[in-house]
Amino acid sequence: MKAKAAILEEFKKPLVIRYVDIPPLLEGGILVKMVSSGICGSDIHMVDGEDPRVPVPIILGHEGVGEIVEINGDKRDLNGEILKKGDLIIWNRGVVCGECYFCKVLKMPYLCENRKIYGINRSFKEYPHLSGAFAEFIILEEKTEILRLSPNTDPNVIVMAGCSGATAVHAIDALEDNLLDKTVVVQGGGPLGIFALSLAKFQGAKNTILITGSSFRKEIAEKIGIDMILDRSTSAEERLNKILDITYGRGADVVIEATGTNKAVSEGLRFLRKGGTYIIAGVASPQEKVPIDFYEVSSKNITIKGVWVSDAEHF
Amino acid sequence: MKAKAAILEEFKKPLVIRYVDIPPLLEGGILVKMVSSGICGSDIHMVDGEDPRVPVPIILGHEGVGEIVEINGDKRDLNGEILKKGDLIIWNRGVVCGECYFCKVLKMPYLCENRKIYGINRSFKEYPHLSGAFAEFIILEEKTEILRLSPNTDPNVIVMAGCSGATAVHAIDALEDNLLDKTVVVQGGGPLGIFALSLAKFQGAKNTILITGSSFRKEIAEKIGIDMILDRSTSAEERLNKILDITYGRGADVVIEATGTNKAVSEGLRFLRKGGTYIIAGVASPQEKVPIDFYEVSSKNITIKGVWVSDAEHF
Amino acid sequence: MKAKAAILEEFKKPLVIRYVDIPPLLEGGILVKMVSSGICGSDIHMVDGEDPRVPVPIILGHEGVGEIVEINGDKRDLNGEILKKGDLIIWNRGVVCGECYFCKVLKMPYLCENRKIYGINRSFKEYPHLSGAFAEFIILEEKTEILRLSPNTDPNVIVMAGCSGATAVHAIDALEDNLLDKTVVVQGGGPLGIFALSLAKFQGAKNTILITGSSFRKEIAEKIGIDMILDRSTSAEERLNKILDITYGRGADVVIEATGTNKAVSEGLRFLRKGGTYIIAGVASPQEKVPIDFYEVSSKNITIKGVWVSDAEHF
Amino acid sequence: MKAKAAILEEFKKPLVIRYVDIPPLLEGGILVKMVSSGICGSDIHMVDGEDPRVPVPIILGHEGVGEIVEINGDKRDLNGEILKKGDLIIWNRGVVCGECYFCKVLKMPYLCENRKIYGINRSFKEYPHLSGAFAEFIILEEKTEILRLSPNTDPNVIVMAGCSGATAVHAIDALEDNLLDKTVVVQGGGPLGIFALSLAKFQGAKNTILITGSSFRKEIAEKIGIDMILDRSTSAEERLNKILDITYGRGADVVIEATGTNKAVSEGLRFLRKGGTYIIAGVASPQEKVPIDFYEVSSKNITIKGVWVSDAEHF
Repeated sequence: MKAKAAILEEFKKPLVIRYVDIPPLLEGGILVKMVSSGICGSDIHMVDGEDPRVPVPIILGHEGVGEIVEINGDKRDLNGEILKKGDLIIWNRGVVCGECYFCKVLKMPYLCENRKIYGINRSFKEYPHLSGAFAEFIILEEKTEILRLSPNTDPNVIVMAGCSGATAVHAIDALEDNLLDKTVVVQGGGPLGIFALSLAKFQGAKNTILITGSSFRKEIAEKIGIDMILDRSTSAEERLNKILDITYGRGADVVIEATGTNKAVSEGLRFLRKGGTYIIAGVASPQEKVPIDFYEVSSKNITIKGVWVSDAEHF
Repeated sequence: MKAKAAILEEFKKPLVIRYVDIPPLLEGGILVKMVSSGICGSDIHMVDGEDPRVPVPIILGHEGVGEIVEINGDKRDLNGEILKKGDLIIWNRGVVCGECYFCKVLKMPYLCENRKIYGINRSFKEYPHLSGAFAEFIILEEKTEILRLSPNTDPNVIVMAGCSGATAVHAIDALEDNLLDKTVVVQGGGPLGIFALSLAKFQGAKNTILITGSSFRKEIAEKIGIDMILDRSTSAEERLNKILDITYGRGADVVIEATGTNKAVSEGLRFLRKGGTYIIAGVASPQEKVPIDFYEVSSKNITIKGVWVSDAEHF
Repeated sequence: MKAKAAILEEFKKPLVIRYVDIPPLLEGGILVKMVSSGICGSDIHMVDGEDPRVPVPIILGHEGVGEIVEINGDKRDLNGEILKKGDLIIWNRGVVCGECYFCKVLKMPYLCENRKIYGINRSFKEYPHLSGAFAEFIILEEKTEILRLSPNTDPNVIVMAGCSGATAVHAIDALEDNLLDKTVVVQGGGPLGIFALSLAKFQGAKNTILITGSSFRKEIAEKIGIDMILDRSTSAEERLNKILDITYGRGADVVIEATGTNKAVSEGLRFLRKGGTYIIAGVASPQEKVPIDFYEVSSKNITIKGVWVSDAEHF
Repeated sequence: MKAKAAILEEFKKPLVIRYVDIPPLLEGGILVKMVSSGICGSDIHMVDGEDPRVPVPIILGHEGVGEIVEINGDKRDLNGEILKKGDLIIWNRGVVCGECYFCKVLKMPYLCENRKIYGINRSFKEYPHLSGAFAEFIILEEKTEILRLSPNTDPNVIVMAGCSGATAVHAIDALEDNLLDKTVVVQGGGPLGIFALSLAKFQGAKNTILITGSSFRKEIAEKIGIDMILDRSTSAEERLNKILDITYGRGADVVIEATGTNKAVSEGLRFLRKGGTYIIAGVASPQEKVPIDFYEVSSKNITIKGVWVSDAEHF
């Protein structure tokens, strides 16, 4: 049996379509027929060779929904339900060791020192070869965290939840205070930003504000009922004033960076009220430094939290 | 009745000794004979005119212990005990309004919008004139937070607790995790740093580490049993390696900036393990910016917390 | 000028309508014309003399919305906005001292040792006499926590928010975990229970479940989209099984007691999954004890939290 | 090769000494020569057949320190260090699955649905037979959480840390507030109570108070510097008054039940100040119910937390 797969054989070159032998399953392994694959913004950087974690050749694709074709042994999903042939499933892209200090003692498996990620740091050369979502089939290893989906779930809608959705949950969960009645600003209208805004609204935030330059993103934000959209083309002063206006001059309780760039930080910190929290969730690659006066952080008693990927709880 | 007082009449000039009339007390006011006054590092900056909160003329001195001479009405200390003539007391330098959004709704009175500070933002020109600790007498207003001290307390030891001591408690209290078995690095061996280290030890930290260049500070740290002292004259790489050596290569759980300068931040962030917390407690005046790549914050899932002054809980 | 008022002159007797002189305002006092008054379930107990806090004669009524007629001085609402004649306002029924150990050090003003409550523990004999909502006018003292309402607010809808609404926020805020994707059971469909359910839904709970015997309450719950309603007439076993069915056999993450009676506790504890939280928010008077085996609490690692009234944050 | 072992073959009968074949190790298995075994209070209940988890025949003993004789594969301890022959180690008595909802999603592995405990729920009939500490050798399975000890550690001192020590850490860690300056009462002077008191002191509690009837326990408490010891022979009123005396009439911030019996609960709740926390850590078997009026819990806004066993973090 063969599986059609799109392989990145060389950086900055188009993916190559090949037919790959499906190997036998190891103990606990699961063969899954892909139903939907998500293309993440970071896939582009990976193709261009900008992500140091990625080897070539590789089958990219870390967002996927599929149908179980075969399971070699008993496997339960995160809710404890036995999985079986034909089940529609989604899986956590990262597989953690469950044994290291970060997994066991700190209970921060998203920082696991041995995290292996489908479609990101698994070479096509190594068993089981089919380790990315850009193929007809994927083989999941025993330790993969899985959720069984209702057959009514739209795979093309849910598929992003495994990556930007789960990271947005991590961002919201990192907040120490309840969002009820709070003002939340999100910088950047990509999937991460939109998920973060939706969650903020879903958790009772009073004012949800998006800063974006994309009219496509604005439309989405309007559809989901985001309270205020500030265009990048306005001046920094205008944007700040709009936020001060609806917060009795105090500023936002929470600002979430979902742009992917350090450049957002200075403006983000200015948006915050004293005692507020700034989440850096989008910055995902080393980049040019930005100048900061930490007096702004100390004198405003601000908390800045970096948020890295996600784990089973967020997923 | 007159009180001898040291008055800053002009910035960058020596304090002038004058004899000042003691005015009658308002409702709830307390006349206190100073027993001990602390000279804080920030007093130097104030004399030099570097702190924008300070008016002239002013009686400086925000750390004080004294004996009650007269109370105009009933007043209880923070433990609910009635205060009376002759009691030895210490007071919180900041008086908060108890009514603003930060006091009432956010329960962060250290961010009170109307905070008035003895010896810092109270002009000598205004009633009750005697509003700083560098004088024979001070007049405390009704809303002042007071603790009655045992007569056995050494005033010269306790006097710093009202300022750097309380701020150190705020810094430690800002940590989300229990310090048990943790590694805590403090940058800077001034009163704030020494208090923070002592508290970390007192709260069960496994390794307490001080970075300082002062041999005087090293001696104090040794006396109170700090586990490791790293000299500023060593290289940054050496310091990092010492910390990695005792943390199984992971880095410190907590780093506390107590130097007063932005320059400490880059090194402080490098000391941290993934998922660790950086407290900025010393930076207390606007200063030159430092370049930061927030990828270090996001990819290491680091929390940075600014800590500003203190309140009744910390005091 | 006179105000019509309903006065409880003797327990278990009907309120007496009298015309009362409106006294002059003290410094900071506010004269308010009542627009809407809420009748709380506890008012009935107060009329019957079952609440030891209540003196007679008294003007009852602790839930109120009104219009400012006169202010003696400057007064700001909790958002820091200057209040003026004609403003529509709602106020926190409890006035706290802001000075005691619970207010200042523990930051739990709902436990203030000097809490004075409009319509509950303020005698009609004492100034300003008009201290309850069951009258044409009420006089608020300076320390009262006030929120200005938009003129479009429906006073009859918002009026309950000051009592059961704020207590429900306190209950939800007492939870340590985010409600996202959680299952919340509320025992009792009175205002407290309905507010708690609405909030749970508003904060992202996946399953919200009401247990009630009242068909009137069921209708309300259906209107606001509560996910499951279990009738008291079903057996305890049936109710438990319904909850286990939708939680993969684990039980509810959170159960909130809003019945007012100890009798709910045993069943409530059974509903919980291991590691879950039980909130006791409704029990408001001393009553017959119920037998408990705390092995259930320890072996299931359960948290039980009593929730008493509310403060400015919840309000 | 044979191992001498003390086997419980029948409840309420003496352990039988037998020489048992040491079976070959499975992948990841570790053969350990016992150096020290602890006898826990619960072992007595297990011999008497009162713990439903225990099968017969069984080798009891869940507290152990030993020396590695053989490892079948690579194994790291919780700090990430490679273990090798000759290492002195201590292990967590409970082995968790790392896969269930409690392990993965709730991050409460102490509630793992598949927790297997050395010396408690592992039958002597099943491989590897040597699964308790009351034998010359024990065989640890791959998933066991291990800490390598310094060769200087006294095995007879550290051996209890794996059971009552880790549970005491869990109890202290369950507190939401910092213990600095707090008053902690512990009911019961067994190993759990003594560990809890030591930890409270080690974490900065101001007053640590033990209630016990045993003069042996009192001596230990005195040696470790516990601040106050209240004898069970005093009246309940006397004990309460002593606690009120040193807490300005408010009561203790934290009370920890370490007696193992429901009977302690009523008194424990009375000791608490408003807003305080009661930890139930000792009750470990089903027992007679005690009558409770939850009005005491709600009106005092008390938190009660059950604490069940421990996990890698506490260990």
